[in-house]
Amino acid sequence: MKHRAQRAIAECRLIATMSEESGRITRRFLTAPMHQVHAHLRRRMEEIGMQVHVDAVGNLRGLWQPAAESAKRLVVGSHIDTVPDAGAFDGILGVTLALELVGIAQDIASPLPIEVIAFSEEEGVRYGLPYFGSRAVAGRFDPTLLALTDADNITVDSALRHFGLHPDRIADAALDDNAMCFFEMHIEQGPQLEAEDLSVAAVTAIVGQTRLTLTFTGQANHAGTAPMHLRRDALAAAAEWITAVETVAQHSDGLAATVGKIIAEPNVGNVVPGIVRVSLDVRHARDSVRSAAVEQLLATAHTISSRRKLTLECTGQLQQPAVPMDERLTAFLDSSIQAAGYPSKAMPSGAGHDAIVLAGRLPTAMLFLRSPGGISHHPAEDVRQQDVEAALRVAREFLLQLGRHVG
Amino acid sequence: MKHRAQRAIAECRLIATMSEESGRITRRFLTAPMHQVHAHLRRRMEEIGMQVHVDAVGNLRGLWQPAAESAKRLVVGSHIDTVPDAGAFDGILGVTLALELVGIAQDIASPLPIEVIAFSEEEGVRYGLPYFGSRAVAGRFDPTLLALTDADNITVDSALRHFGLHPDRIADAALDDNAMCFFEMHIEQGPQLEAEDLSVAAVTAIVGQTRLTLTFTGQANHAGTAPMHLRRDALAAAAEWITAVETVAQHSDGLAATVGKIIAEPNVGNVVPGIVRVSLDVRHARDSVRSAAVEQLLATAHTISSRRKLTLECTGQLQQPAVPMDERLTAFLDSSIQAAGYPSKAMPSGAGHDAIVLAGRLPTAMLFLRSPGGISHHPAEDVRQQDVEAALRVAREFLLQLGRHVG
Repeated sequence: MKHRAQRAIAECRLIATMSEESGRITRRFLTAPMHQVHAHLRRRMEEIGMQVHVDAVGNLRGLWQPAAESAKRLVVGSHIDTVPDAGAFDGILGVTLALELVGIAQDIASPLPIEVIAFSEEEGVRYGLPYFGSRAVAGRFDPTLLALTDADNITVDSALRHFGLHPDRIADAALDDNAMCFFEMHIEQGPQLEAEDLSVAAVTAIVGQTRLTLTFTGQANHAGTAPMHLRRDALAAAAEWITAVETVAQHSDGLAATVGKIIAEPNVGNVVPGIVRVSLDVRHARDSVRSAAVEQLLATAHTISSRRKLTLECTGQLQQPAVPMDERLTAFLDSSIQAAGYPSKAMPSGAGHDAIVLAGRLPTAMLFLRSPGGISHHPAEDVRQQDVEAALRVAREFLLQLGRHVG
Repeated sequence: MKHRAQRAIAECRLIATMSEESGRITRRFLTAPMHQVHAHLRRRMEEIGMQVHVDAVGNLRGLWQPAAESAKRLVVGSHIDTVPDAGAFDGILGVTLALELVGIAQDIASPLPIEVIAFSEEEGVRYGLPYFGSRAVAGRFDPTLLALTDADNITVDSALRHFGLHPDRIADAALDDNAMCFFEMHIEQGPQLEAEDLSVAAVTAIVGQTRLTLTFTGQANHAGTAPMHLRRDALAAAAEWITAVETVAQHSDGLAATVGKIIAEPNVGNVVPGIVRVSLDVRHARDSVRSAAVEQLLATAHTISSRRKLTLECTGQLQQPAVPMDERLTAFLDSSIQAAGYPSKAMPSGAGHDAIVLAGRLPTAMLFLRSPGGISHHPAEDVRQQDVEAALRVAREFLLQLGRHVG
C-alpha cells in the first residue's frame, strides 16, 4: 500500500499544477485546466483498462469491468474542482484513491465492476451553487440551472457547450440501476481526527444546517453623555447573546453553533452602537437537536432584547436537513476500519460533499482521512502518507466485504 | 424671563439658517456663514451697548461696562461652529443666553463688566482638532497649529487670513488679568436631566477619557468541521469581554465604558472568526477611578485571552485627564440653582466643552440645560422654553452672588 499511497499523493500534487492561476491552485467548473485534468486522468484510467467518457455535465467517468463480472457495480469518486487558492487534496485525493482502489480490485480479483467518477463541480464557486456534477449523476439536475450565470455573465449552458459538451444530454448522466452503492474518500477538513490521533473515520451523516441573521436594534448614543443605565446598547446585547450561543453549543454533544459575522452601526469608538447584525450558523447530525438549539438561541435573543428594551429581527437564509449515510454500508465501513487494524471511529461531517447528493439516489458511505492541523481550503492543506495508506487498507477491506455480500 | 427665553431660542433658530449647506445646519470654523453670524451678533451686541471686536482667531467678543464699573469682569460664552448636519442649540444657545444675561445685568444694575465670547471653533470638525477659539483666549494657542490643513489642503493660517484676520496677532486674543472667571451655559447633550426631570445642573468636572483598541487573535476555522472544544474563536472571546466591560461600568458610579467599534475577520457567516478588533472608551470625572477601571478591564481581557489560548494586543489612542470646574464658583452656581427655586443637581460632563480649556486659565463654572430625548449633534436636537427660563433665572442669581462677592 505504501507505493499506492505515495502515488495517490504525488498525483494530487501533479494535478495541483493544473490551475487557472500561476502560483495558486484555482480550478473552477469547466475552466481550461479541467481539460488538462481530464486528459491526465483519462490516460491513467485507460492504462489500467478502464473505459472512459466525459458525461454531459463534465464528469470524467471510468468503468472497470472484471473478467467474471457481476451486474451490480460500485461507484467511487469525488470532485476535481477547487475553491480559489485551494489546497492540493480537497476532492482530488478521493479520485486518485479511487484509481488505486481499481488497482487493488484487480489485485484481489474482485468480482465487482467499479465506476470511478471525477465530479466536475462540487464547491459552488463559479455559479454560487454546489454539486452540479453529483446532481446530474443522481438524476436530480434541474435544467433551469443551465440559465445561471457566472461573474462574467456566462451561462452554465454556454460554459458546457464551450467545454465541448451537450447540455441537452445531461439526463443521460444519471446512474442506471446497476449502480449498487456510492463510496467517497475525502479529507476531514477539520481537526477532530488529529485531536484524537486517528487516521480515518466512517462518516455517519452530513450535518443539517440552519443559517440566520439576527438584528439587534437599540439606540445609538454618545459614549460620554449617556450613562450606563440609560443606554440601549445593541453591541452589549449581541455580546451577551454570542456568549450564550457558545455556551449552548458547548453543552450539546456534536452541536456546532457559530457567530461568524458581526456588523455594528455606526461602528465608531465614541458612540454606543445602535444596531448590530450577527450571523448564526448551527449544525448537527440530528435535525431535532439542531432545531431545538436554534429555538433555544432565538428565545434567548428575545429575552436579552426585551430585558434591554431592544427590538430583535430575525431572517433565515438556509434550512438544510441532515443527510445520514446508509446505515448498513457504514457498518461495513466501520468493520473494514477495524479489519484493517485501525480503531473504530464514526463521526458526522460538518461540511457538504458529493455524498450528500448521491445519498438521495443510492446507498452511500464515506471515509474521512485526517487533515493535519485541521487545515483545508488553504494552500497549507496536507495529508499524511500513513493516513492515505490507512484509507487504502480500509477501502480494500470494504471492497472485500462488498464482494462477499454481492457474491 | 419668558420673553428673554423665547428670544434666546428664536435667535438660535435664526442663526441655524446661516449654514454652509442648504437644508442642513453645518457651520465649520471660518466658513462664509460665520461672517453672517458675526454680523448678526455684532448688531445685537451693539444694540445693547457693548463694544465689539473679532479677535485674531475669529472669536467675536463683546464687552459691556456698567456705569459704576468694577475692574474685574465676568467672561461668558460658548461656541458658534457646528458639526455637520447639526442641531440648532449646541454651542450657540450659550451665546444667545450670554446676551440675555447682559440684559439682565443691566436690569439689576450689576457692578460687574461682562465680556461675551462667541468662540470660533470648538467641534474640531475642519482641522480634526478642537478648541481653536478657547485655546487663544486662554493664552494657550500653539502657533504650530497654524500649519494644520483641512480636507481642501487649506492651512489654518491661510483660512484665518482669508477670513480677514491676522494670525500673527493671536497672542493678543489671550484674556488679560481683569478677567475674573468664565461661565458657560450649554445643553447637556445627554439624557440624565431628562431622566431625572430636571431643568438644569451645575457641571462638576469634564470627565477624563481613555481610548484603546484591543485585538483578540485566535484561529479562523470552518464553522462546520471545527468542534466547539477545538476552536479559538476571537469573537466569542471579544463578546465575553464586552459583557465584562458593561458589567464593570454598571457597578462603578459615574463610570462610562463603551465598546463602540468592532471589526471581525474574516467576518463570514460560516467561518469561526480568527481576529476581532474592538475599541474601548472609558470616562470618569475622577482619574483614579478611570485608571483603575481600565486596568481591571485589560486584566480581564488578558484572562479571557489566555484561558481561550488567544493572543491579545492593546494599543492606546488617548489618555486625557479629567478637568474639574472651580470648586468655589461651582458652589456659587449650585446655590444659585437653589435660590432660583430649582432642585440642586451637580453632574460631570461626559463631553468636552470650551470650559475645559478656559478652566486651565481662570476659575470656570458651567451650567447644563436639559436635552430633550438626550439628542444632540442631530437636526432633532432641541431645548424646552421652561429650561431656558430656568437657566436665565439661575444665571441672574449667579450674577447677583458674583456681584456681592466682588463688591
